[in-house]
Amino acid sequence: MDAETRANLEAISVATVSMQLLKRGLRNVSMVGPKALNAPAKPLVGEAYTLRYVPMREDLATPDVLGRADYGPRRAIEEVPAGAVLVIDGRGQGDIAVVGDILVERLRVRGVAGLVSDGGLRDFDECLAAGFPLYAAGPAAPASVAGHSAGDLQTPVSCGGVAVIPGDVIKAGGDGVIVIPRALAAEVGRDGAEQERYEKFAKLRIGQGRPVPGIYPPDDDALADYAAWLEAGEPED
Amino acid sequence: MDAETRANLEAISVATVSMQLLKRGLRNVSMVGPKALNAPAKPLVGEAYTLRYVPMREDLATPDVLGRADYGPRRAIEEVPAGAVLVIDGRGQGDIAVVGDILVERLRVRGVAGLVSDGGLRDFDECLAAGFPLYAAGPAAPASVAGHSAGDLQTPVSCGGVAVIPGDVIKAGGDGVIVIPRALAAEVGRDGAEQERYEKFAKLRIGQGRPVPGIYPPDDDALADYAAWLEAGEPED
Amino acid sequence: MDAETRANLEAISVATVSMQLLKRGLRNVSMVGPKALNAPAKPLVGEAYTLRYVPMREDLATPDVLGRADYGPRRAIEEVPAGAVLVIDGRGQGDIAVVGDILVERLRVRGVAGLVSDGGLRDFDECLAAGFPLYAAGPAAPASVAGHSAGDLQTPVSCGGVAVIPGDVIKAGGDGVIVIPRALAAEVGRDGAEQERYEKFAKLRIGQGRPVPGIYPPDDDALADYAAWLEAGEPED
Amino acid sequence: MDAETRANLEAISVATVSMQLLKRGLRNVSMVGPKALNAPAKPLVGEAYTLRYVPMREDLATPDVLGRADYGPRRAIEEVPAGAVLVIDGRGQGDIAVVGDILVERLRVRGVAGLVSDGGLRDFDECLAAGFPLYAAGPAAPASVAGHSAGDLQTPVSCGGVAVIPGDVIKAGGDGVIVIPRALAAEVGRDGAEQERYEKFAKLRIGQGRPVPGIYPPDDDALADYAAWLEAGEPED
Amino acid sequence: MDAETRANLEAISVATVSMQLLKRGLRNVSMVGPKALNAPAKPLVGEAYTLRYVPMREDLATPDVLGRADYGPRRAIEEVPAGAVLVIDGRGQGDIAVVGDILVERLRVRGVAGLVSDGGLRDFDECLAAGFPLYAAGPAAPASVAGHSAGDLQTPVSCGGVAVIPGDVIKAGGDGVIVIPRALAAEVGRDGAEQERYEKFAKLRIGQGRPVPGIYPPDDDALADYAAWLEAGEPED
Amino acid sequence: MDAETRANLEAISVATVSMQLLKRGLRNVSMVGPKALNAPAKPLVGEAYTLRYVPMREDLATPDVLGRADYGPRRAIEEVPAGAVLVIDGRGQGDIAVVGDILVERLRVRGVAGLVSDGGLRDFDECLAAGFPLYAAGPAAPASVAGHSAGDLQTPVSCGGVAVIPGDVIKAGGDGVIVIPRALAAEVGRDGAEQERYEKFAKLRIGQGRPVPGIYPPDDDALADYAAWLEAGEPED
Repeated sequence: MDAETRANLEAISVATVSMQLLKRGLRNVSMVGPKALNAPAKPLVGEAYTLRYVPMREDLATPDVLGRADYGPRRAIEEVPAGAVLVIDGRGQGDIAVVGDILVERLRVRGVAGLVSDGGLRDFDECLAAGFPLYAAGPAAPASVAGHSAGDLQTPVSCGGVAVIPGDVIKAGGDGVIVIPRALAAEVGRDGAEQERYEKFAKLRIGQGRPVPGIYPPDDDALADYAAWLEAGEPED
Repeated sequence: MDAETRANLEAISVATVSMQLLKRGLRNVSMVGPKALNAPAKPLVGEAYTLRYVPMREDLATPDVLGRADYGPRRAIEEVPAGAVLVIDGRGQGDIAVVGDILVERLRVRGVAGLVSDGGLRDFDECLAAGFPLYAAGPAAPASVAGHSAGDLQTPVSCGGVAVIPGDVIKAGGDGVIVIPRALAAEVGRDGAEQERYEKFAKLRIGQGRPVPGIYPPDDDALADYAAWLEAGEPED
Repeated sequence: MDAETRANLEAISVATVSMQLLKRGLRNVSMVGPKALNAPAKPLVGEAYTLRYVPMREDLATPDVLGRADYGPRRAIEEVPAGAVLVIDGRGQGDIAVVGDILVERLRVRGVAGLVSDGGLRDFDECLAAGFPLYAAGPAAPASVAGHSAGDLQTPVSCGGVAVIPGDVIKAGGDGVIVIPRALAAEVGRDGAEQERYEKFAKLRIGQGRPVPGIYPPDDDALADYAAWLEAGEPED
Repeated sequence: MDAETRANLEAISVATVSMQLLKRGLRNVSMVGPKALNAPAKPLVGEAYTLRYVPMREDLATPDVLGRADYGPRRAIEEVPAGAVLVIDGRGQGDIAVVGDILVERLRVRGVAGLVSDGGLRDFDECLAAGFPLYAAGPAAPASVAGHSAGDLQTPVSCGGVAVIPGDVIKAGGDGVIVIPRALAAEVGRDGAEQERYEKFAKLRIGQGRPVPGIYPPDDDALADYAAWLEAGEPED
Repeated sequence: MDAETRANLEAISVATVSMQLLKRGLRNVSMVGPKALNAPAKPLVGEAYTLRYVPMREDLATPDVLGRADYGPRRAIEEVPAGAVLVIDGRGQGDIAVVGDILVERLRVRGVAGLVSDGGLRDFDECLAAGFPLYAAGPAAPASVAGHSAGDLQTPVSCGGVAVIPGDVIKAGGDGVIVIPRALAAEVGRDGAEQERYEKFAKLRIGQGRPVPGIYPPDDDALADYAAWLEAGEPED
Repeated sequence: MDAETRANLEAISVATVSMQLLKRGLRNVSMVGPKALNAPAKPLVGEAYTLRYVPMREDLATPDVLGRADYGPRRAIEEVPAGAVLVIDGRGQGDIAVVGDILVERLRVRGVAGLVSDGGLRDFDECLAAGFPLYAAGPAAPASVAGHSAGDLQTPVSCGGVAVIPGDVIKAGGDGVIVIPRALAAEVGRDGAEQERYEKFAKLRIGQGRPVPGIYPPDDDALADYAAWLEAGEPED
C-alpha cells in the first residue's frame, strides 16, 4: 500500500469504501460482529496479519498450552509486524476472549496498528485504557483456551463472516470493519475520495431544501451545479 | 390520532403502552431489534408510513437502481408525510444499512417525526449528529443495495418481528418500540395515563418500605390508600 | 462463604475467576447474555437465590396472575435474602422484561446484593437510576407475563446458558457474570489473588518492553525476577 | 382424562387440536423441535410426567452421577406411571441425547405410553426397533451428561418452546406434538370431533370442484348442505 | 416462458440452473428452507404467483378472518392460475403451516403446478397423499393464523431468503428450489442443456479412471475428446 | 491406526465411542450438522484428510477458479489417500454444496473411505446412487463457489463445530460423526468393546423386567451376574 493510497483510505469513511467495493461487485466485505470499542472509535487502516482458531477440544486446549514455544496465538503477538492489523478469527464467538489486557499492552508496545476480531476481549476496561484501536465483539471473561484450540498463522481466515487473505487492507471506523482486497486498494481509495467530495456537496444542497432525487445520485443539472460549486472553491457548509 | 390521544401517548412510557396492549390480549407488538440510538433517547409518537425490502438479488439491486425515478426507497423519503414515522422493514438484517446521513438529513428537513427500522444506519455518527429520532439496529457500513432489493411502499410490513399496518401508531423510547393498532390508540392512551398515576403512588409506598404484594397490583387497602393520596393532591415523591 | 473468601472474590476480576475455574476443568461457567448495565459496572459478589420461568402459555400468563398470593415471581422479590443475588432464568429472552423499576426499588430497599438475568428490564432508565447492581440483557418493554409463565423458586436453573444451583457464588463485573460452584469458592478466591499479583508484575515488565513468551506464563527466569520484585515490596507500576 | 375424552383425542388429528386451542386463544402450544420419529408415526395421547435438565457444568455432570440413587433422570425412568407420557426438557439441544436404547427398552417394558423431548436419542436405530412411540429431535451420539446436568422431576418445564405442567395432556402424531392444558382436554376433544366431521364434508365438496370460499369456513348454504349430508348418513368419499 | 424454454428447464437439474445463474453473477437465488416433500421429489417448473404474510398480531389474526371475502390467503388459492406455482412467503417459520390438506386439494383440482413455501404444512400425510408437487419446510400443526397475519398478493416477496417477483420462473427438484429471473429463463435453459451434455461425458470419463483436473472444467484435450464423443453419437454410459 | 484398533472401532457404535471419550474428559467431539445420508447409514472408520473453506468473496470465488491447477478443493479430491476420510469444513453452511456427483464418483473410484462435511451435496440423488459413505448436511443446489472461497488443505479445521486435526480418526454411523484424537484411538476401541459387551447383558436383563438402577451402571450384584453370564458363554438374547 503506497502512501497516497494510505492517505486516501484514511481520509474516507468506511461507508464510502463499502460503496466503492459494491460498485466493483463485492458485497461480502463488511464484517458482522466486530465493532468499534474505543469511544470515540479510533480509525484504523493497515494490512492484515491473520491468526486462526478452531473449536476447543479438551485435549488440545488447556491452560498449559499457553506456555509452549510453538503456541501459535502467542507467536502471533510477537510476529505481527509494526503497522499491521492483527486479524483474529474467533469463530464468531463473541462470548470467548481472544486476548486480554496483557497481550493488548504487548501489541501497543510493539507498534501494531490495531486489532480486529469477531471474538471478545477480557479485562475489557484495562484493554480500553491502553488507547489502542480495538474492533471486536465486546467484553468476555473466558480466556481463548476455554473455547478455542490453536489453528494457524498467516493463512486465509474468516472474520465476522468475511474472508481475509494476509496482506488485504483493513479499513475500520465507527461504521464497522471492511476488508479491501489488496489489488483494489489503490483504486478504491482514489474513487472514494471523489465520491465523498460529491456527497459533501449533495448534503449541503439537501440541507438547503433540495429533494433527494436528481441530487443523489446526480442528474445532469446536479452535475453542472456540482462543477460550479467545485470551481467556486468548495465553500464550507 | 386526535390531540388528546397524542398528548396521552407522549406522556406515558413504552412499558405502560405494552401493558395496556397486553391487557387487551396483544402480546406481539414490541419490536425486537430496533433500539433507541440517540443518547438520551428521543421519545417518538406518530403514525406509521411503511417501506419494505426483499432479499438482494444481483439483477435487482445494483448501485444504478438508486437513480431510477420509480425506485421505491427513494420515493419513500420524499413521500412520507411531515409528522409521520418512517418504518422500514429491513428484514431483520442489522448489518445492512437502510439509510445514511444524507437521507436522514432530508427526513429532518422535511419534518418527518422519526425513523424506525430493524436494519442499520451508515455514516452513523453523522446520522446521530442530525438530532433526529432514530430507532434502528445500530451502525452498518453496507448500503441497502448490498443486501436488499426494493419491495414496496405503504403495505403491511414486518419490522422487528411485529406487523405494522400503514397508519398504526408508533410509540418509541428508551425501552424500545411498540406498535399500537390504530383503533386502540385512544383507549390505550387514556388507560395508560391512569396506570402511571397509580404506579407513581405504588413506587412511593415501596420506597417507604411497603412489600410489593398488596400494592402492586393493588388490594382493597391499597386502593383506599391511593384514593386518599390522590385526594391529598399527589404529594411529590 | 466466609469473610476471607468474600474479600478475595471481591478483590479479583471476573477474568481471573474464569481462569481459576478453567484450571479446575470448569469451562461452562461464564454467562452469555447478562451484561453489566450500570455505567460504570457495579461489581457484585453474593450467593445465588434462583427464580425460574417457563414459556408463556395464554392460560397461565395473564396480567391477573401478578396479584395472586402464590405467584412465585412476586414471592421471590420478598423472599430473596438481604445480601444474596437474585438470579432469574429468563429463558434467554432478552426482549422480555423480568422486572421493572418498582420491583428493583423493592430489591434495593430490602438490601439484596444485586440482580442477574438473561432477560430484559422495563422502565430501564428508572431501573438504572436506583443505583442497584444490575446484570441483564438490556431494556425491554414487555412485562414478564407477555412472554413467560411462572416456573418455581430455589431450584437449579439455567441463566445465560450456565447452570446455577441455589447457594452457588455469583461474581460479576465489567467482563460479565461467572458462577462459582459453592464448594470451590474459597480456593478460587485464594489462588485468584495470587494469580493477579503475578499478572501485575507481568504487565509491568511487558510495558517495559519484554516479549510475552517467558513472562506469561512464566519460565524460571521470570519466576526469579518475580520473587525479587515481590521481595522488593511490589514497586508501583 | 376420562375415557370419552381419551377416545375423542385419539380420533382427531394434531392439526384439529391445534385449531381448537387457537379458538380458545392459545397459540403457544405446538412444540418446535420434537417430531415423529417412528415411520409411520405412532399416534400418542397421554398425561405428561416431566423431567428437566439444566446446562452441563463439569462438576455436576460426569459419567459417575448416572449411578447415584438420587439421580433424577434415572428415577424418572422408574417413576413415570404406565400410560403416561415422559416429557423431557432437553433444553432444545437436539445434538445431545436424553435417552438411549437401554432406557427406551425399560420404558417399553414398564408400559409407558411414549416419549416426547426436544433433545436427541442415542443408539437411534435400536431405539426405533423397540416399536415405542418416540417424538424427539433425531439421532445424537453424546449422552445426556455430555451436555446437561440434572434438573428435577414433575415441575413445570419447557419442551420444544412450550410450557408443560405435569398432568397436561400430550397429543402427538405426524404433524408434531401439542400440549393441551388439563382443564381444556374434554372440550377440545368434543369440539374437535365435530370439526373433523365438517372437514370431511368440506374436502369431499372441494374434490367435486367447489371453490373454498363459502365452504371453508362455511356460509349458510354450506351448513344446510352439510346438514343434509349428515342426515343422508355420511356417504363415504 | 415459451415451450422450448420450458422443455429445457424441465430437462436440466436444479444444480445446473444454479450454476448457469452463478455464471451470470447471481448467487442469491437458491432457497433455504423449502425442500422436496414428495418421495421421490416431483420436479416442478412454472411461473410464480406470490402470497405474502406478515407477523401475527392478535387483532389481525383470528380464526374468524378465514371467512372474510377479502382475506388474501384464501383469494390466492382461487386466483393463482392453472399451471403457475403458488409461492408463499411464510416468513421462514417452518413451524407454522401455510396450508393444509383441504387447500392443497383445491390447488390440485384447479390445475396449479405446485406449491413452494418456507412455511410448513398441516395434515401433512393427507397433503402428500394428494400427489401434488410440494416444496415446503415440513409438517407443522398450527394454522397460519396462529403465527401470521395476511399480507398481500402478487407483490415481490421473500421465500427461503430469496426475492421472488411475480412471473419469475421457479425450478424445483430433489436439490431444492431455485428462482430464475424471468428475463434470464430462456438463456439459462439453453446453456444449461449444453452444460449437462458435457457433464455426462465428464462423469463417464471419471468413472473410467480419469482424474478430475483437465476434465472438469475441461482443458483443450478434454474438449477435443468431448467433440469426438459427441460425434460418435453419445454412447450410453 | 493398527488393525486391531480399526477392528474394534468398526465393531462398536458411535454412541459407545462418544461415552469412552467423555470418560476421558472429552465432550466436544460429536459433530452437529453432518448426518448419515445413505439409507441405511454406511458405517465409516478412517483417518481424516482435511479441506477448509473461507467465506465467499466475489473476487476469489468465481466459476473460473475451478479450473486452476492450484485450486485447493480440486487438489484435495486427487490427494486424499485411499482409505482416508475426506473432511470438508463447509463453514456450517448446509445450504451450500461442497461437492456434487462428479467429484463423489472420483472419490469412489480412488478408494477413499468416505466423506464428512457440515456443508451440502448437489446432484444429491446421483451422489447417493454411488453407494459411497456420505455424512453431510443434505441436498443443496449451489456449488461451493456460490458461497465459499478456497481455504487450504491438511490444516486443523472445524467441521460440525468440532476440531479435526489431520490424522485424527473419524467414526461415523447412524448416530452421527465423532472425532477421535489420534492418540486415544487404541484405548477407546479396546474399552469400547468391553462397554458394549456389558450393555448387551444389561439390555437383556432389562428386557426381562429388571429396573435400570443397579444394572446400568452396574452395582456389585450386577457385576457378579454379568461375570456368570460371560462365563456361561454369552447366551444370545
